[in-house]
Amino acid sequence: MGEKREVAAAAEEQAAVATVAKPSCYSLVFKLPAGGGNHMASREDREPAEEELFVPPLNFAMVDCGLYRSGFPDTANFSFLKTLSLRSVLCLCPEPYPKANLEFLEENGIRLFQFGIDGRKEPFVNIPEDTITEALKVVLDVRNHPLLIHCKRGKHRTGCLVGCLRKLQHWCLTSIFDEYQRFAAAKTRVTDLRFIERFDTASLSYEFRAVKFARLKFTSPLI
Amino acid sequence: MGEKREVAAAAEEQAAVATVAKPSCYSLVFKLPAGGGNHMASREDREPAEEELFVPPLNFAMVDCGLYRSGFPDTANFSFLKTLSLRSVLCLCPEPYPKANLEFLEENGIRLFQFGIDGRKEPFVNIPEDTITEALKVVLDVRNHPLLIHCKRGKHRTGCLVGCLRKLQHWCLTSIFDEYQRFAAAKTRVTDLRFIERFDTASLSYEFRAVKFARLKFTSPLI
Repeated sequence: MGEKREVAAAAEEQAAVATVAKPSCYSLVFKLPAGGGNHMASREDREPAEEELFVPPLNFAMVDCGLYRSGFPDTANFSFLKTLSLRSVLCLCPEPYPKANLEFLEENGIRLFQFGIDGRKEPFVNIPEDTITEALKVVLDVRNHPLLIHCKRGKHRTGCLVGCLRKLQHWCLTSIFDEYQRFAAAKTRVTDLRFIERFDTASLSYEFRAVKFARLKFTSPLI
Repeated sequence: MGEKREVAAAAEEQAAVATVAKPSCYSLVFKLPAGGGNHMASREDREPAEEELFVPPLNFAMVDCGLYRSGFPDTANFSFLKTLSLRSVLCLCPEPYPKANLEFLEENGIRLFQFGIDGRKEPFVNIPEDTITEALKVVLDVRNHPLLIHCKRGKHRTGCLVGCLRKLQHWCLTSIFDEYQRFAAAKTRVTDLRFIERFDTASLSYEFRAVKFARLKFTSPLI
């Protein structure tokens, strides 16, 4: 069953920052020099003062504008995640969210949606269709963007959710499976592919249309 | 050597459509019913009238907002590519661009940048650093976005270009290689990884900073 848990403190923080404009998507972010409040492109700050590198989470990728996927983030990934200006994180693991991650979300006004799906082995356990449907409703709500979807390794549960999103986007199954397998590789589960193939998108068509219109309205041309 | 070829007809078409606002990124596109000029979310058009599915090119993925990567697109991919509202295509193959693809670009006002790099086998041929640098300048110019980078299979040449872009974005090498290998898989070339590792981003820091500021200026918050 889908278990939706929201972190109250994060929600309060979210409300507090609701009026702060966040970019609709992360955009070729690079590291500014420490303490660099000066946004003018002066010669001095072309090169970052420090050599700290970003560490994206395992299996990190962009799904769509304002939508990301990955494995479970840990503290090493937090400085990178900050560059995404996330509004929400959608976790597909049922375990209690780690304290360090909760603190990171609270500090950055990021809301947590949790839809617990057991990390299971084929061939005997099925992915709960109602949980994926509820999770997709969160994904399709642009008010939650930029949003990061993650599970443990960013392969199976995340792969199923993204695969169902691609069905809504009218991708052919060949391309959906190709994308799934790019992340799952040798760990590909036939039960996941069958779940995606059978998933009925009809109940989400309204939400899908809504996100399209919201984006057309709020997305500006670059130049 | 980097060979930059622009298609004159496409450039003219591009100039003609320069004032037409295009979305900064593709956003959960789905197929509208045939002849559907009505953009209101009426009950009747929640479901696409036809069952045609989109076929993204081989190894298609989103690199960043307004940036895509793939293998060589063919006619089966054109209806999908139209949904991306591309302004430009950057091809890394040296062969003459196919007639059908040129026609598609012309019809849709898409500019072609071609930086020919031989499809080579290791261990004896090196990727030309100057060509990658020139290609990256095109990638970093937001006036060319939305832009699709492609080579033959979307693995090696495209992987090198995206890998160098990730260096500019200050990703650690582990994450850069992880992304490269997600596409190249068993075809991973050690020479490509060494090229990315050795690539000097210093000469591109100005262009990289420029794209960041342009995006901050032109990207609106979703809501």
